[in-house]
Amino acid sequence: MNDSNRYILTIKCPDRAGIIHRVAGALLEVDGNVLEQAQFTDEDSGVFCMRTKFESPVADLDAVRTVVNSRVMSLGPELTLRHEAEHRRAMILVSKHDHCLLDLLYRFGNGELPIDIPVIVSNHDHCREIADRYRVPYFYLPVNPDNKAAQEARVLELIEEYSIDVVVLARYMQVLSSDFCEKMAGRVINIHHSFLPGFKGARPYQRAHERGVKLIGATAHFVTGDLDEGPIIEQSVERVNHAHTTADLVEIGRDVERVVLSRAVRLFAEDRIILTGQRTVVFA
Amino acid sequence: MNDSNRYILTIKCPDRAGIIHRVAGALLEVDGNVLEQAQFTDEDSGVFCMRTKFESPVADLDAVRTVVNSRVMSLGPELTLRHEAEHRRAMILVSKHDHCLLDLLYRFGNGELPIDIPVIVSNHDHCREIADRYRVPYFYLPVNPDNKAAQEARVLELIEEYSIDVVVLARYMQVLSSDFCEKMAGRVINIHHSFLPGFKGARPYQRAHERGVKLIGATAHFVTGDLDEGPIIEQSVERVNHAHTTADLVEIGRDVERVVLSRAVRLFAEDRIILTGQRTVVFA
Amino acid sequence: MNDSNRYILTIKCPDRAGIIHRVAGALLEVDGNVLEQAQFTDEDSGVFCMRTKFESPVADLDAVRTVVNSRVMSLGPELTLRHEAEHRRAMILVSKHDHCLLDLLYRFGNGELPIDIPVIVSNHDHCREIADRYRVPYFYLPVNPDNKAAQEARVLELIEEYSIDVVVLARYMQVLSSDFCEKMAGRVINIHHSFLPGFKGARPYQRAHERGVKLIGATAHFVTGDLDEGPIIEQSVERVNHAHTTADLVEIGRDVERVVLSRAVRLFAEDRIILTGQRTVVFA
Amino acid sequence: MNDSNRYILTIKCPDRAGIIHRVAGALLEVDGNVLEQAQFTDEDSGVFCMRTKFESPVADLDAVRTVVNSRVMSLGPELTLRHEAEHRRAMILVSKHDHCLLDLLYRFGNGELPIDIPVIVSNHDHCREIADRYRVPYFYLPVNPDNKAAQEARVLELIEEYSIDVVVLARYMQVLSSDFCEKMAGRVINIHHSFLPGFKGARPYQRAHERGVKLIGATAHFVTGDLDEGPIIEQSVERVNHAHTTADLVEIGRDVERVVLSRAVRLFAEDRIILTGQRTVVFA
Repeated sequence: MNDSNRYILTIKCPDRAGIIHRVAGALLEVDGNVLEQAQFTDEDSGVFCMRTKFESPVADLDAVRTVVNSRVMSLGPELTLRHEAEHRRAMILVSKHDHCLLDLLYRFGNGELPIDIPVIVSNHDHCREIADRYRVPYFYLPVNPDNKAAQEARVLELIEEYSIDVVVLARYMQVLSSDFCEKMAGRVINIHHSFLPGFKGARPYQRAHERGVKLIGATAHFVTGDLDEGPIIEQSVERVNHAHTTADLVEIGRDVERVVLSRAVRLFAEDRIILTGQRTVVFA
Repeated sequence: MNDSNRYILTIKCPDRAGIIHRVAGALLEVDGNVLEQAQFTDEDSGVFCMRTKFESPVADLDAVRTVVNSRVMSLGPELTLRHEAEHRRAMILVSKHDHCLLDLLYRFGNGELPIDIPVIVSNHDHCREIADRYRVPYFYLPVNPDNKAAQEARVLELIEEYSIDVVVLARYMQVLSSDFCEKMAGRVINIHHSFLPGFKGARPYQRAHERGVKLIGATAHFVTGDLDEGPIIEQSVERVNHAHTTADLVEIGRDVERVVLSRAVRLFAEDRIILTGQRTVVFA
Repeated sequence: MNDSNRYILTIKCPDRAGIIHRVAGALLEVDGNVLEQAQFTDEDSGVFCMRTKFESPVADLDAVRTVVNSRVMSLGPELTLRHEAEHRRAMILVSKHDHCLLDLLYRFGNGELPIDIPVIVSNHDHCREIADRYRVPYFYLPVNPDNKAAQEARVLELIEEYSIDVVVLARYMQVLSSDFCEKMAGRVINIHHSFLPGFKGARPYQRAHERGVKLIGATAHFVTGDLDEGPIIEQSVERVNHAHTTADLVEIGRDVERVVLSRAVRLFAEDRIILTGQRTVVFA
Repeated sequence: MNDSNRYILTIKCPDRAGIIHRVAGALLEVDGNVLEQAQFTDEDSGVFCMRTKFESPVADLDAVRTVVNSRVMSLGPELTLRHEAEHRRAMILVSKHDHCLLDLLYRFGNGELPIDIPVIVSNHDHCREIADRYRVPYFYLPVNPDNKAAQEARVLELIEEYSIDVVVLARYMQVLSSDFCEKMAGRVINIHHSFLPGFKGARPYQRAHERGVKLIGATAHFVTGDLDEGPIIEQSVERVNHAHTTADLVEIGRDVERVVLSRAVRLFAEDRIILTGQRTVVFA
């Protein structure tokens, strides 16, 4: 049995008895063997979430999907099913700061990040050489007040054209329109350079320095129309002290940002994130 | 449905297709609803591990067990099943250092640690007042070369008498006999004051200071006949520097020790640890 | 030379060349030997901060002070000088949650916290037994809208009466008046149960849960009239996930709170904190 | 006053009263102003260590050195003094794993790492393209049992030729000879991919997996003739669990390794490490 017969299945639906039994029944029907399974029921909202990785001698995705659907469709689930080997496709948006982009591409290049990166978009031309090095098409779409809507429309076209599953804002310094955010809900990941909800908005390191915090952080979250308020995927912090200047915080922060963003992208790449309203269930 | 109808089930058996389906079928049969489920298959050894917390209108433990057994017994599993409300029972062994004992009792007292502590044993009389405060019987069993075997036999009697599930060595400074370790395999948790496998054996903080490490740690592990080599349950570290004396390391280490040990005991209390040879599967 | 001849000196003054030379000259004059010295100049404000621990054959504090003053008084410094063995004196204020109080007293009891705790005050009677165990006088000063001002005045009297250097709010659930905060500026340490500036104000764990953060934290800070906005002394965080309920966050948070508060109190006890406007210099 | 008049001075000598006063006197004589100063006396060995960063209107290094020497030479110190702007010079040795090399070069390129990297040496040709990108000469010196001594001699020649201060083993998979280690004592930094003293020697991630540790780590240390036993400069860890394969540990470990090594190199670049026997004083 080769890797193309490994599947990842996620289900979100209202909780009730017997869901796991139905799924397990479907897997048995395709001679499936569970390799990894996680389940969580949010007691507040009554939402059941599940992620299963299994292998099956049945190689045809549609055949497996038909069996699963026949068992669980009456539950009214949100369901995803795919071959593990058929990677999610990510578009990276970047401005001038290149550390997150470099980090994602490095992990992509060495096989650590199971995702495809078919296209990079930027409002600056700075990172073209990096994209070239990894042979990823690079679209330079400069943004000004007059062309902002048009350029965003162009991004949406590229998303369509390249069959993009997820847009990764790797320090992209443009606010996306509400319309864009709504269309792409749950499919745009941003890295914010603070430990949210502290220091929402601009210049978080400057403000962290002024406030005299003893730890700085970074937050990867889904983007919504409400700036820096989207569902959090991953966070981390690093210790700092009085002797660190704002410039020092920026440097230290780079290390936190790239690790947090790459973790979030990997969680997405492996279908480990399930959105439940304003919160995320992360099967890490 | 009250808490007494919440069950925790763990299964360990050789991996094969359909195990989850069988368990799910058993739960359906008792109108069970899964609250939390985790599964892991160790690809090296081919061992399947699973923990399920579920609720059922069936209040009778034996009735539930009969149904589960009828479905899974042919798998040759190691299986545990209990009412969540029927707590595991811990004996604490302690010498003079009282910080771990105090911490366990504090968490026990405020309901944070879902375990019963019916008895405390010590080779010193120092901690009696603490035991009295929590109204836990305290057995002072001083140990010397001549009575060591007899006192260990007495501990085994107390384990029997108090129906003890797990023995917690909360800085107990006596080495237990191989015989004792074998009899109680997988049921004795020790806290070692180093980040194992570094600094096995005596005086780890002194040796950490001499070696000039920049982090010190603590390790909670199951006890085996092979000193400080038992399966690891939990570890943590804290940053130190050149200015810290050995005495400072001891102080800093106390904080790490008590947190690591209490986490390990809680994991045991909630049936979240499954032993697979020299390693532990921890469904945290 | 015994411990009573160990001194701790701190100086804060506008930066200029030669300050360290003057202090070193003063120490030479009393045959002093530096054991530990740290210095920091805040480039934004031009404030010079220094902490020196030294030993001297001169046992008389006033004699040493005269020598130091003669060298540095023209700098217009804020200066503290004391025998290391003459401990700072802390009043602890507590409400019902006892974990921080217990932790401070435990460290005080085993000699880990070089501070005196001559008095405990509470608006509830719950923690009296704990105070009794450590033989610390316990004042029960219940607070309601009518007597709030009078009870605060009583606290100020007790501060006077017991020669208190620092007031520690160990989960004290009453807001202190601006007047009190101003009188005691730089001498009141609070533990806030969030990673400030996130979740200022009430019910931080509840809000952290709703926001779906992946780390929770605690912050020790000096109290000012501006709630939860005072200078930060110490912070720490712990990882959480979607499966943790608000009650779980409260439990996990307790561990963070007690460690952060005890670190802050110890830093104060050792004269390691120097206030520079809204920020702290911490010579850790 | 421009940056070229910023100096970094370090002194190590037997402890005695008045050292700080002497140094402060020297600085006054060159109209110096201390920007940052740290001091530590190791009570076990009686060794006094100090690092001072100061600015002075005197631009001539030799002039400043003469003044400092005249004041402190009688103490028999090990002393370093340099313009802050005159960077330490590092040779990087690498084999096939490029993550540490890339990380060092990235930080070097963006100005974060105040060091010069005039030459890279490798026993493989794999990383040449990376070196080219940063325009650093790359010497491919393949090693086999017959030419090992000759190639090491060649490395020493390059060290001479490029006036190298520090050799950084950025995952260099060759053991250096005792002779080399002795000649370069205190000037060769290695990254070991475990939390020393655990898992010394080969295949640490494999052994960490077998042992079932719950944290993995990395250690930057000075190289001595005694493999993986040299003085530790910096360490860090990352949490892992039972589900991580050895390959996962390698991936997670890469992040730890590159951060730990770059921190250690930066500490060296800023003259913040002072060796005291088997331990390091790190003025972080």
